[in-house]
Amino acid sequence: MTTVKLGLVGLGTVGCGTLNILKDNADLIAARTGCRIQVVAAAARDLSRARSCDTVGMSLTDDPMQIANNPDVDVLIELMGGTGKAVEVVRAAIMSGKHVITANKALLAEHGNELLALAEEKNVMVAFEASVAGGIPVIKALKEGLAGNKINWLAGIINGTCNYMMTEMAKPGNDFAPVLAEAQRLGYAEAEPSFDIDGIDASHKLAVLASVAFGVPLSRTGMLIEGITMVTAADIAWADDLGYKIKSLGIARRRESGLELRVQSALVPKSKLLANVDDVMNAVMVNGNAAGTTLYYGAGAGGLATGSAVVADIVDVCLAIAAGKNNRPALGVPMAKLASMPILPKDDILSAYYLRLDVTDAAGVLARISTSLATEGISIEEMRQQPDTKTGSATLVLLTNVVQEAAFQRALAALNGLTDLRAPAAWLRVEHLS
Amino acid sequence: MTTVKLGLVGLGTVGCGTLNILKDNADLIAARTGCRIQVVAAAARDLSRARSCDTVGMSLTDDPMQIANNPDVDVLIELMGGTGKAVEVVRAAIMSGKHVITANKALLAEHGNELLALAEEKNVMVAFEASVAGGIPVIKALKEGLAGNKINWLAGIINGTCNYMMTEMAKPGNDFAPVLAEAQRLGYAEAEPSFDIDGIDASHKLAVLASVAFGVPLSRTGMLIEGITMVTAADIAWADDLGYKIKSLGIARRRESGLELRVQSALVPKSKLLANVDDVMNAVMVNGNAAGTTLYYGAGAGGLATGSAVVADIVDVCLAIAAGKNNRPALGVPMAKLASMPILPKDDILSAYYLRLDVTDAAGVLARISTSLATEGISIEEMRQQPDTKTGSATLVLLTNVVQEAAFQRALAALNGLTDLRAPAAWLRVEHLS
Repeated sequence: MTTVKLGLVGLGTVGCGTLNILKDNADLIAARTGCRIQVVAAAARDLSRARSCDTVGMSLTDDPMQIANNPDVDVLIELMGGTGKAVEVVRAAIMSGKHVITANKALLAEHGNELLALAEEKNVMVAFEASVAGGIPVIKALKEGLAGNKINWLAGIINGTCNYMMTEMAKPGNDFAPVLAEAQRLGYAEAEPSFDIDGIDASHKLAVLASVAFGVPLSRTGMLIEGITMVTAADIAWADDLGYKIKSLGIARRRESGLELRVQSALVPKSKLLANVDDVMNAVMVNGNAAGTTLYYGAGAGGLATGSAVVADIVDVCLAIAAGKNNRPALGVPMAKLASMPILPKDDILSAYYLRLDVTDAAGVLARISTSLATEGISIEEMRQQPDTKTGSATLVLLTNVVQEAAFQRALAALNGLTDLRAPAAWLRVEHLS
Repeated sequence: MTTVKLGLVGLGTVGCGTLNILKDNADLIAARTGCRIQVVAAAARDLSRARSCDTVGMSLTDDPMQIANNPDVDVLIELMGGTGKAVEVVRAAIMSGKHVITANKALLAEHGNELLALAEEKNVMVAFEASVAGGIPVIKALKEGLAGNKINWLAGIINGTCNYMMTEMAKPGNDFAPVLAEAQRLGYAEAEPSFDIDGIDASHKLAVLASVAFGVPLSRTGMLIEGITMVTAADIAWADDLGYKIKSLGIARRRESGLELRVQSALVPKSKLLANVDDVMNAVMVNGNAAGTTLYYGAGAGGLATGSAVVADIVDVCLAIAAGKNNRPALGVPMAKLASMPILPKDDILSAYYLRLDVTDAAGVLARISTSLATEGISIEEMRQQPDTKTGSATLVLLTNVVQEAAFQRALAALNGLTDLRAPAAWLRVEHLS
C-alpha cells in the first residue's frame, strides 16, 4: 500500500474543513485511493489559536517554507491565500519535487503560468479544484467531463458575496448600503468589501475557468472587470417586472475574432436555471459543441464545501502517485499547447442592454430616444413606462437587441445629451445565455 | 506517442455522435490525451443503412463479436444497447483483455457486478459515463469530484421522456394521453412507451447512480419502481397552486436502517432548482456530508450529448493506457469493497404526501378526514378547498407532514372507506429535497 504524506499550509476555515473530512471520511477515502494518507505537517500563522480541527501527530510550524522544504512531505496543500508568500512557498515546494494542491485563485491568475510550467518541468502535479466555486467539481467537469468538447462559452455566478447581495436587494425595501452592511455582519463580506463587490475575486476565478475551458494561458490582461456597485434595488425591481433577475457573472465567450472575458452584473432571464441560483450559492453554466449546455451548482465557499474540493484533489493525486505516473496536464493540455487568443476590447463586446431613463414627460421624448438608439442601429425589444404625475416626469425602461458595446456607448452618450433626461441613464447588460 | 485503437459496436445516434466528435474535435482530444486515437473497426446491425457519420478506413461488420475478438482493438465501445447480445459482447471483450466503454444502463444494472468483477480480474477498465444523464458528467462527479464525501442522498430527473411529459402536462388543456401521443410523434417516446413511463429506464440509471454514490453492488432488487401514469393535469395544476411542480424522480437516500431506492413521481418545491428543470433536460441533485448539496444539469439524451460522455471516457481510458496503469476502480471502490445495504421496503419510506379528495360537501367531512389522518399520526400542513356548488361536492387538496409510508397507506385506506369520498383519493409523494 502506497503511503502519501501531506503537508498543510494554512489552518483556517478551509484547512480545518479539509482535515475534518480526511478524518471523518477516512475509510471511504482509503477505499477510493487504496493509499494510506497521512497529514504529517501543518503551518499556521498563529499556532496558539484555538481550532475546530485536530492536529495531533502533525509537526506544526508558523513558517510555511518549512513545509515546502520538508523532505517528509509528498504533497503540499496551499490554503494560506494571497500572492505574496504563497508564490514562494508553492515555487519552493515544486522545486523540491512536491505535488501541490491549492485553493488560491489569485495565485493561479497572477503566477499560474510560471508555476505550472515549473511543475511540468519537475514532473509534479498542481491541482486546484478548490480555487473556483468551492465544493462544485467544475474544474474537473471542464477538464475531464467535457474533455471532448470545444467550449463555446461559460457563464458563472462565482462570487457568493455578490450573489447574496443581489438576492437580498430583490427583497422589498433593501438597497445596496444596508444589504452590504448585513453581509458584513454575517461574515459574507469583508470590512473592506472591494475585493468581492468590485469583481476582483471573480476575475481571478474567471481567469482559471477560461484557461481550462479554452486552453489559453492564465491571465486577466484585457479582462473587463466590473462589480455590482452600479446595481440598484430599482433596477432589480424593473428587471423582475421584465422577467429577469440581476446577477453578478463571470463570462467567457469564444468568438471568431477572439475571446470575450468579463466580470459584470447583468440581467438574466428567469427561465434560465442560473437566474434561480440565490443567496451565497454558486453555479457555472458551460456550453460545449458536443454536450450542449450543462450547469454545475453548489456551495461556493465554506470550510467543508471547499475542503470537499481539496480532498477530491488529494484523491486524484494519491491515485496518480500510486500509479507511478500522472499524464493529465494541470490545465487539461500541456503548457506548450496553450494558445493565446486575442482578448476582445470592451468596444467589441456583443450584448443586449437594459436602460432606465428618468425623463420629463414632454411631447416627442420617446421619438428622440428611439432616434438616438436607431442612429446606432439599436432597436427596442421591450419597454415599460411609468409616469409620475406629481413631478411631470416618467421612468422609461428599455431592453435592446444585441449590438456592439461601442454602438451602445455612443447611443448612451447621445441619450445623456438629450435635455429630456433628468439624470444620467442607468444601464446594464442583458445576457440571454444561449 | 501511444496509439489507442477503438472498436465501436453500434452505429446509431450515439455511435455516430461519438464518431463525429472524435473527428470534429480531433486536435483538442489529441492535445488532452497525448495519444493517437484510431477507430479501427465498427459493427452495425444493418451495414447498408445510410449514416450521418464517416466510417472510412474502419473495418465494418454486422457481427459485434468480431469487434470483441478483434486483436487489433484496444477499447471496445458498446453502444448497441439491450441485455441480450450486449452481455456476451462485453464479456468476450473483457476476456480478450480489452477495455470497455458503455452507455448501456440496463447491462450495468442487470449484469454489472459480474462484468466489473471480471474486468477487475483481467485488469481492464470499464467506463460508463454515458449510461446516466447523457452529456452530464455526473458519474465522474460522484466518483471523483465528490470522492471525499459520504453521500447522504441523491435525487435526479433522469428520464427525458417523463420530464417532457410532466412539463407539457403543466400547460393548459394538456392531459396524459394527448401529451404522450405528441411525445411519440416527436420521437421522445417509443411506440411502446412502457420502458420510459413505467420507470424501467430510470430504475436502471438509479441502480448505477446508487452504486457509485453509496458503494453498493449494482442492483434493482427491492427498488420501488413507479412511473408517471398516475399523474393527471389536475394534480399538476393543484401542485402549482401550492408552490410545487410534479417531476419524475430517481431517489436514493441513505438512512440508518438502510437505503431507500425509488423511482416515482413527486411534488418538488418550485424554490428548488430541480423543479425548474424542464422539457427533455436531466439533472441530478446530490447531497454529501462535505460538499453539501450540488446539482448537475444538462441534456440527458441525443447523439452529441451522449457522445460527449463517451468521448470523456475515451480520454480517461487513453490517458490510463498511456500511463501504463489504471488504479481508479470502475465504481469508485474495488469490487471487493462494495458493501450491500438493506434496501428499505416500501412501508418504511419516509415521505410527505399530497392528497386530492373529491368529497360530498356535507357537514363534518373535514373532521372525519382529519381524524382518519390523525389516527395514523399524520398532520395536515397545508390545504386547499374548491366547492362545486352545482354538484354539491368539493375538491379537497392536502399536504401532510413527513410520515412512514405504511402509516400513510393505512390512512389512505381509511379515507377511501369514508362515504364522504365520491372517488378513490388521488395521492403523490412530496419531496422537500433537504
